[in-house]
Amino acid sequence: MATVLKGSEVAHAFDAEIIDKSKSLRTKGIDPTLAILRVGGREDDISYEKGVARRAEKVGVSIRNVVLPADVEQSALVQAIESLNADTSVHGVLMFRPLPGHIDENLVRNVLVPTKDIDGITDLVLASVFTGTGVGYAPCTAAACMEILDHYDIDPKGKKAVVVGRSLVVGKPVAMMLLSRNATVTIAHSRTEGLSSVTRDADIVIACVGKAKMLGASYFSAGQIVIDVGINVDEGDTLVGDVDFTAVKSIVGAITPVPGGVGTVTTGVLVKHVVDAAIKTLGQ
Amino acid sequence: MATVLKGSEVAHAFDAEIIDKSKSLRTKGIDPTLAILRVGGREDDISYEKGVARRAEKVGVSIRNVVLPADVEQSALVQAIESLNADTSVHGVLMFRPLPGHIDENLVRNVLVPTKDIDGITDLVLASVFTGTGVGYAPCTAAACMEILDHYDIDPKGKKAVVVGRSLVVGKPVAMMLLSRNATVTIAHSRTEGLSSVTRDADIVIACVGKAKMLGASYFSAGQIVIDVGINVDEGDTLVGDVDFTAVKSIVGAITPVPGGVGTVTTGVLVKHVVDAAIKTLGQ
Repeated sequence: MATVLKGSEVAHAFDAEIIDKSKSLRTKGIDPTLAILRVGGREDDISYEKGVARRAEKVGVSIRNVVLPADVEQSALVQAIESLNADTSVHGVLMFRPLPGHIDENLVRNVLVPTKDIDGITDLVLASVFTGTGVGYAPCTAAACMEILDHYDIDPKGKKAVVVGRSLVVGKPVAMMLLSRNATVTIAHSRTEGLSSVTRDADIVIACVGKAKMLGASYFSAGQIVIDVGINVDEGDTLVGDVDFTAVKSIVGAITPVPGGVGTVTTGVLVKHVVDAAIKTLGQ
Repeated sequence: MATVLKGSEVAHAFDAEIIDKSKSLRTKGIDPTLAILRVGGREDDISYEKGVARRAEKVGVSIRNVVLPADVEQSALVQAIESLNADTSVHGVLMFRPLPGHIDENLVRNVLVPTKDIDGITDLVLASVFTGTGVGYAPCTAAACMEILDHYDIDPKGKKAVVVGRSLVVGKPVAMMLLSRNATVTIAHSRTEGLSSVTRDADIVIACVGKAKMLGASYFSAGQIVIDVGINVDEGDTLVGDVDFTAVKSIVGAITPVPGGVGTVTTGVLVKHVVDAAIKTLGQ
């Protein structure tokens, strides 16, 4: 039976460090603050917003909510981001995506100043993830996968890692992060032929396709480490991952649950990035 | 016996198009011009410079050589790039790297304006390669690998591609380009365990490690497509690739030779990028 890699254990392990840092910032008159910019009222976004707020309160990070209507004009959205850029009391900005179809997302995401980009959405920060120069903060979900591996002393070096999914939010950045830690990295996706034999051959599988329980028992083999990034609702209205947890946990060596896995760590990484960004403003 | 994928055939196929475009530019008073910025007098750089000059002359692209001493001050190098940025008669800039150790390469490469970055060295262009937004010009060697596949009607879609090497000049960008064409992509490198079994399992192997004949017969299997990016000098002072061509050509389905393979196409891609960059200045 697999070891269950619990997100709460990982997040708690760095909570103490974040709380210390945010306390120290307050004694210097800095209130580490995350602005959450939401366009429209998507349920997923609101639910994530609540999770972030709970976590932020726990570690002493303040939240500023900015909500714009779903039909907001692009210029108004750009202006909202520019205000947050200029506001020295804001240290990080989380902007929910995808943005509505009438908005040029590639343009808008790059309006954010890279120093406040605590979720790796700007080209300059993504370039750093790609080049490995380590400037800025990688997308939180990708960083959360790495935190889980680190917490459980799983060294990717020399291991075969298969990332299923190639989004900019998780798949591509986590592939680059695994590569920089000397894993041999395969990026698989919806067009991959013989996916189950590709994943079965891996030491580490990162599942980030966004399809409920898509990866069943036949995709896995003994001893593997499985990080399940998916957060989906199945036909019975239950929150499930991309991996069929019940079927797979008896096969592999270790696996993250959903809920209670990567998602829990992601909000932890997010507030950590905000506190780190606030620290960087000291002495400026 | 493998089909030999000749670089000259690929380059000649798009020569006609480049010549047409550069003629058309001249009728509009524009002389498509590539500035080549070299620091010091490394033999490799000078040899590549000559190859580019020959190719440029053939297709009607002018060359401007800028040579700075190996001990140039960083500020002078930055100034030289800024002059080229401002010079409207220059449409693309090729800067040889690695730069001498006293220069902060990450800083210097980003001084170049992305519109003149015809070899994908700036963060903004690299971000585009990573995100797949298609802005700017990918590193020429990586683009050359894709041109060879395209010319010989090898569609990467659904195929297993293994890239051996993870440089920013070839390995990482070509991996992203193969991924955007729906290949399942594995990035292997010096720390990969069991490399020969990883490469043997691929449909397409891109070798870009920079070690003379490192990949011998045991690394390959029947029917594979092999693109050899390496340009190395072996113990007998002969130009050889990363693949042991003689040993491997009897095993695989198709292979690029060295010399006469990727390198020949790379200079073709470079002048193509310059002409395309010149076309973009029309009407500005």
